[in-house]
Amino acid sequence: MSEQNIEAAPADGSRLSRRRAITLAGVGVAGVAGVAAGATALVRGADHAAANDVAAGAVPFHGEHQAGITTPAQDRLHFVAFDVITKDRARLVALLQEWTAAAARMTAGRDAGLIGAVNGMPEAPPDDTGEALGLPPAQLTLTIGFGPMLFRDAQGRDRFGIADRRPPALADLPHFAGDALRPEISAGDICVQACANDPQVAVHAIRNLARIGMGVVSVRWSQLGFGRTSSTSRGQATPRNLFGFKDGTANLKAEDTGLLRDHLWAHPGDGPDWMTGGSYLVSRKIRMLIETWDRTPLAEQEQIVGRSKGAGAPLGKGDEFDEPDFAAKGEGGEPVIAETSHVRLAHPSQNNGARLLRRGYNFVDGSDGLGRLDAGLFFIAYQRDPRKQFVPIQTGLSRNDAMNEYLRHVSSALFACPPGVRDAADFWGRALFA
Amino acid sequence: MSEQNIEAAPADGSRLSRRRAITLAGVGVAGVAGVAAGATALVRGADHAAANDVAAGAVPFHGEHQAGITTPAQDRLHFVAFDVITKDRARLVALLQEWTAAAARMTAGRDAGLIGAVNGMPEAPPDDTGEALGLPPAQLTLTIGFGPMLFRDAQGRDRFGIADRRPPALADLPHFAGDALRPEISAGDICVQACANDPQVAVHAIRNLARIGMGVVSVRWSQLGFGRTSSTSRGQATPRNLFGFKDGTANLKAEDTGLLRDHLWAHPGDGPDWMTGGSYLVSRKIRMLIETWDRTPLAEQEQIVGRSKGAGAPLGKGDEFDEPDFAAKGEGGEPVIAETSHVRLAHPSQNNGARLLRRGYNFVDGSDGLGRLDAGLFFIAYQRDPRKQFVPIQTGLSRNDAMNEYLRHVSSALFACPPGVRDAADFWGRALFA
Repeated sequence: MSEQNIEAAPADGSRLSRRRAITLAGVGVAGVAGVAAGATALVRGADHAAANDVAAGAVPFHGEHQAGITTPAQDRLHFVAFDVITKDRARLVALLQEWTAAAARMTAGRDAGLIGAVNGMPEAPPDDTGEALGLPPAQLTLTIGFGPMLFRDAQGRDRFGIADRRPPALADLPHFAGDALRPEISAGDICVQACANDPQVAVHAIRNLARIGMGVVSVRWSQLGFGRTSSTSRGQATPRNLFGFKDGTANLKAEDTGLLRDHLWAHPGDGPDWMTGGSYLVSRKIRMLIETWDRTPLAEQEQIVGRSKGAGAPLGKGDEFDEPDFAAKGEGGEPVIAETSHVRLAHPSQNNGARLLRRGYNFVDGSDGLGRLDAGLFFIAYQRDPRKQFVPIQTGLSRNDAMNEYLRHVSSALFACPPGVRDAADFWGRALFA
Repeated sequence: MSEQNIEAAPADGSRLSRRRAITLAGVGVAGVAGVAAGATALVRGADHAAANDVAAGAVPFHGEHQAGITTPAQDRLHFVAFDVITKDRARLVALLQEWTAAAARMTAGRDAGLIGAVNGMPEAPPDDTGEALGLPPAQLTLTIGFGPMLFRDAQGRDRFGIADRRPPALADLPHFAGDALRPEISAGDICVQACANDPQVAVHAIRNLARIGMGVVSVRWSQLGFGRTSSTSRGQATPRNLFGFKDGTANLKAEDTGLLRDHLWAHPGDGPDWMTGGSYLVSRKIRMLIETWDRTPLAEQEQIVGRSKGAGAPLGKGDEFDEPDFAAKGEGGEPVIAETSHVRLAHPSQNNGARLLRRGYNFVDGSDGLGRLDAGLFFIAYQRDPRKQFVPIQTGLSRNDAMNEYLRHVSSALFACPPGVRDAADFWGRALFA
């Protein structure tokens, strides 16, 4: 047997202080329950967790707001929506506590729990699944949200005694023109957004939350995103979506303190107190008909988007971050930026100033059985009130956006994401269930 | 309009010599066909292509063997299987030539073709889809293979006059015990394996090959892999699969020159000349029942695998690269490494010395509608002759491997991957169709 690190687990499972690593040599092959095996307790290596690469580092878990919203968008996503399958409020609350402890550990680059048997119990399943052993924190963030049906289910039942705490802003989204939603990959009682710079770290986190939640929650749907399509910080270059265009140039950014206050975070008096400092998440899985798009002339693509493909500049301008001039006319008198262009219809100036913080991801889910790639954008947007932001913006886009010819919205979900977990005594949903 | 780089395209489209970049300032907004747009020719930035990070660099496309086999396994995969939908041999050969030129460009960090209209033709669709603009080569490799049905289809037809060139080693795989194959995501006439350290670069490459192939081929199935599960070079650490174990420790490595000669590459006389220097690819999509696995005790997991979870050492040994001792007995007289363990059954010593070069990837394809993640291993193995390597190994595993309880093989495919493209005059399949 090689030398193995065995960790002294903090009692509350959530403390992020430096771990005490004990090197234990010569753990023998133990015969237990007829099975000969070297069962050992394993932890993710402190060496890796201390990697000095920023992209590999840890994002603080505790704070006023949840991480994973204004955190500079990481490269990879694993998003999951759970159904709550218990009727027992206490079990659900216990799970939220257990999840919070595991999330604090994993975002710090540690395991969800002990992998091996510190107390000589190799007959127990590991408390971590192991595939992230040796990997750094990779800026993992885990962001939780509560869906409308958690408050009152499809049969109108107040399953957990929180129906009166449903925020008015958590109003069911309307049907939008062209929606082709698949119920089995839409909605959900609880979501967790895992973002990281290593997909294995994001997958590991979601997989372990699902493992911990066994019997209390069930995976309703999940989505991998391989490449971010938005920058949420001025330090990040704007990435490209699968139409080949820079996306989210005019996105709310972490540095826009005033705009974030007005457009991102729920205020006291906006709704129930438990949401103060939280934000509302809208997800939309948007299939892109890329084969059709790829047959479209460049000039037409640029006109549909309203930006140039290369620099990403608004048409008629030279730089990506130039303000679009919606009044400008071309030689023939027609608008330089078409009335039906995406950039015009989505722009705050056309939506009473409404803005979103977007942090979507490109996806490819194999092929569609019709000879085409099943690819597109998993759109995620955070906001203070979807009724005043996503809903009016999407209403306009769904009716008039020239891009709709190349899009199919196949999944939709809405979640109330509470404020941050303040300290080790706090947990996801504490104020909601208080 | 910003300054735009316009490239003087090499006539043959495949030359990798340094491009001649022309900076053109002040391209105006042009009214074309009633559409006002700044249509411009764009190319991926030479600055990015010259990034000094090894993981971002370019892998040579031309050579004796195809890249993407012994190339140190990149982090991400996009694998596609195409059906050939034309009956016209000349169109298929022309596509293979066009693909080869595009592959040479893309693996060098360039676009598949010109994005904009150098000759003032913005009404043409771009010859590159654009989502990799600004991204480095990311060690992209593109590896092609030809499936059995390309030689003679399901109706027994010799569609392209190459039935007599089918290698004997490209024999249909037998049914293995427990196979639960889905035909719609199995087999295929042509495969392309795209591996890169940036998933957007791999997706971009496959998407552009599909775009170029429109009308000649159709995407049958495609698979994204988010994390490599094998090391193919002694310089790489062994990664972990979704069972949390190090995988492929005993894999053939690029440095094993003698073993590669004996086990990886087709020799003169092995079959038709066009395959000399090539290799045979077997892919298997293996769903892992991770929820069940996660409830299994650590000791039992280690006994099933035959290795420790932490170090990845063979049971009874201390280091990952120690040779397993299959004769060793425990205190009770039972083998330290069980007769049904994966490491024993897959080991060359138990398979007449047969070895594989594996370069598989972890996948998560959302959830399965039953509350579980749809996750597992996309297994890829290269070899000199599947009849003597994959088939006998998998026959033994499928009958006796204790791991089978946690696995479902849902897709299977076999392809003959020709030798490398030698130079700009050569192309994928030239010798096959000569």
